[in-house]
Amino acid sequence: MDLRTYIRDVPDFPKKGIVFKDITPLLNDKDALHYALTTLAERFRGRGITKVVGIESRGYIFAPAIALGLEAGFVPVRKPGKLPWKTVAEEYELEYGRDRLEIHVDAVRPDEKVLIVDDLLATGGTASAAHRLVQRLKGVVVGCGFLVELTSLEGRGRLPGADVVSLIQY
Amino acid sequence: MDLRTYIRDVPDFPKKGIVFKDITPLLNDKDALHYALTTLAERFRGRGITKVVGIESRGYIFAPAIALGLEAGFVPVRKPGKLPWKTVAEEYELEYGRDRLEIHVDAVRPDEKVLIVDDLLATGGTASAAHRLVQRLKGVVVGCGFLVELTSLEGRGRLPGADVVSLIQY
Repeated sequence: MDLRTYIRDVPDFPKKGIVFKDITPLLNDKDALHYALTTLAERFRGRGITKVVGIESRGYIFAPAIALGLEAGFVPVRKPGKLPWKTVAEEYELEYGRDRLEIHVDAVRPDEKVLIVDDLLATGGTASAAHRLVQRLKGVVVGCGFLVELTSLEGRGRLPGADVVSLIQY
Repeated sequence: MDLRTYIRDVPDFPKKGIVFKDITPLLNDKDALHYALTTLAERFRGRGITKVVGIESRGYIFAPAIALGLEAGFVPVRKPGKLPWKTVAEEYELEYGRDRLEIHVDAVRPDEKVLIVDDLLATGGTASAAHRLVQRLKGVVVGCGFLVELTSLEGRGRLPGADVVSLIQY
């Protein structure tokens, strides 16, 4: 299945001059959604993954269904102040300034094998922060799965030791 | 399976005097996650549902996996300015003030049968806004599914005509 045909180009979003890759037509189509979720799960089967981390908020669209497919648990990584219990945090760079991501301290056990999932791999800033969060809890990041990868931004270089899989590349 | 045993009470979150129902231990446990996702899908099987709407951001944790189980598409309902294409919006009340939710205008076709999903049914403000968004697109809201329902707030009264299902009640 050519998933690329389900991506809609939206010019000038979120600001003038940027062409946004809109994934909602893909999510809206039951066959494309099924293919994307099951293919990402299949690519990481048999690797002993017991936790799938989803990055707020669009990583949540993919991570729990992949966790279901891999018989793993789901772990949310959230923006600051949203997780209610004890957390650790890691910073990442934005175009202007910095932001943080948080994870619950009991979300991953030591030596547990972890898959990190998000919709888009661009510069790798948020995925790299999620990777460091898992390492802070002494988990092992086996893989990182994305629907879309913008290869020219070389984000996968910031995810050392992880098997990086994307279903659509630009 | 008694899902309630996987919910963690967090006192004084998000502010003093409130006991927050933390669902992350449930999501973290592969058996509890599997049970919650498959039970919600089963409760709506055979109803002709072709779209599952998830409300940003914790509705995303449940809706796509339920869509997969029902062989339906997934539709995100988002906060203002986040969806890139043409949208319609509906307002809802907050404790102080108002906010809006948006849906893409092509997300639901006329007469399509729709399930709305979120983590929590409290006053029903956001679910009711999502319900109105689907109606604006001439879709039919067959059901609303939630992990947790705070029954004393009577949110289900704001979802007329929909079969409302929750897995845990307080």
